Amino acid sequence: MKNKLSIIKIGGNIIDDDIALYRFLKDFAALKEDKILIHGGGRAATRISSQLGIATRMIDGRRVTSKENLDVVTMVYAGLINKKIVAGLQSFACNAIGLSGIDANCILSSKRDSAPVDFGWVGDIEKVNVESVKHFLSGNMTPVFCSISHDINGQILNINADTVAAEIAIALSREYETQLIYCFEKNGVLSDIHDDDSVITSINPTKYEALKAAGNIDEGMIPKMENCFRSLRNNVSKVTIGNTGMLNNNKLYTTVTL
Amino acid sequence: MKNKLSIIKIGGNIIDDDIALYRFLKDFAALKEDKILIHGGGRAATRISSQLGIATRMIDGRRVTSKENLDVVTMVYAGLINKKIVAGLQSFACNAIGLSGIDANCILSSKRDSAPVDFGWVGDIEKVNVESVKHFLSGNMTPVFCSISHDINGQILNINADTVAAEIAIALSREYETQLIYCFEKNGVLSDIHDDDSVITSINPTKYEALKAAGNIDEGMIPKMENCFRSLRNNVSKVTIGNTGMLNNNKLYTTVTL
Repeated sequence: MKNKLSIIKIGGNIIDDDIALYRFLKDFAALKEDKILIHGGGRAATRISSQLGIATRMIDGRRVTSKENLDVVTMVYAGLINKKIVAGLQSFACNAIGLSGIDANCILSSKRDSAPVDFGWVGDIEKVNVESVKHFLSGNMTPVFCSISHDINGQILNINADTVAAEIAIALSREYETQLIYCFEKNGVLSDIHDDDSVITSINPTKYEALKAAGNIDEGMIPKMENCFRSLRNNVSKVTIGNTGMLNNNKLYTTVTL
Repeated sequence: MKNKLSIIKIGGNIIDDDIALYRFLKDFAALKEDKILIHGGGRAATRISSQLGIATRMIDGRRVTSKENLDVVTMVYAGLINKKIVAGLQSFACNAIGLSGIDANCILSSKRDSAPVDFGWVGDIEKVNVESVKHFLSGNMTPVFCSISHDINGQILNINADTVAAEIAIALSREYETQLIYCFEKNGVLSDIHDDDSVITSINPTKYEALKAAGNIDEGMIPKMENCFRSLRNNVSKVTIGNTGMLNNNKLYTTVTL
């Protein structure tokens, strides 16, 4: 029987809220099974870009990454946010290790084609280095990944944190029984995007397509949902979406099925 | 017989010079023995602080670290510079892993007393976690440390990169035959601080005290030299100081002895 491994992604709104973040980190640290944390940080990157006089441009909810933007996301994701999270987890007796995809070549990416949309220094994930990630887990270390990667030729690339979580869950499924959890500021997938209490407790592709056709899926949820279904189709055992309370005693969240 | 391990520290002037940095990283990647890189980055931190409108204050060549300065050094050292170096080394087929002292609790520190001088969020190293560092080396990973640490209670602390190098060399001496190399923009310890060619090929405490008394030791060299002597007194086999060429074919540098 395979060991259990939880891959948990937290979004930028949690990271920006010190009280919510530390409550989440405490719950995360208390999980007994092997675990990996993936974090975003776009809101902080946008704020620091603005302080540095660097423009932020988004297309379809994704950051266009100029050379200057790349320096900012590398600083903010791999430096400021990653180390804040790791220091917090260490204080809760979780032996966290902060990583980007560059470190130990954990996540190899390639620059996204500049057509049809030129996103700049944005990468698509080519490969998760299972051996490197396993080496950390075998040393009782808890990897904490930010969404920064490289192309092995020295170029740093900005990657999508939701996709990092899905790709790590899929790659590690060969060796572990994996579950993928997306934690964010909402209570789950909502049937009415204006009603935070309208959580759909279980969603499958048919139900999702119907909601999307009716305009009831938030634009930002579309790539997340696609990551969920792809994970389930590639041997991830369980996928759930909800707020940070779901690691503790909150029973209201969305379970994604095929 | 113990395996050999080289601990090499590079200073901020090299980091700020892309051509010098990549030449150094190529030479570093080519070293056959186990190795650890430690980097500074104060010049970049000062530049980005200034862009963010945050004042930089130095006392005796050491950075006074306010809350705002701490965020900047965490971003710049652990994010921007660390990942640039790791991506460069990965491109030269060196399986580098970027680390702060927070990660896997590699370096535990305590906040420096605010008397006689209040340096703010500056730490003094309490302990290097030899088991964590060995775990990376045993996985054929090359640790690349920035000078950021923590107090295990969630507080990030700014530490001195020269001292990080010395403390890692001393701690790993129990298990490895260690050599410590300080690489910087000068050719070594100079007998005349205005003459770059006046390299002292060998220096011991007696010679050092005489030079210091005569005002011929640059202020910035004093803590570095003290780290060198302390390392030699604590089982580090060899300590040298010179420019980046010393990893390649440059034979002009300073050997420190007791």
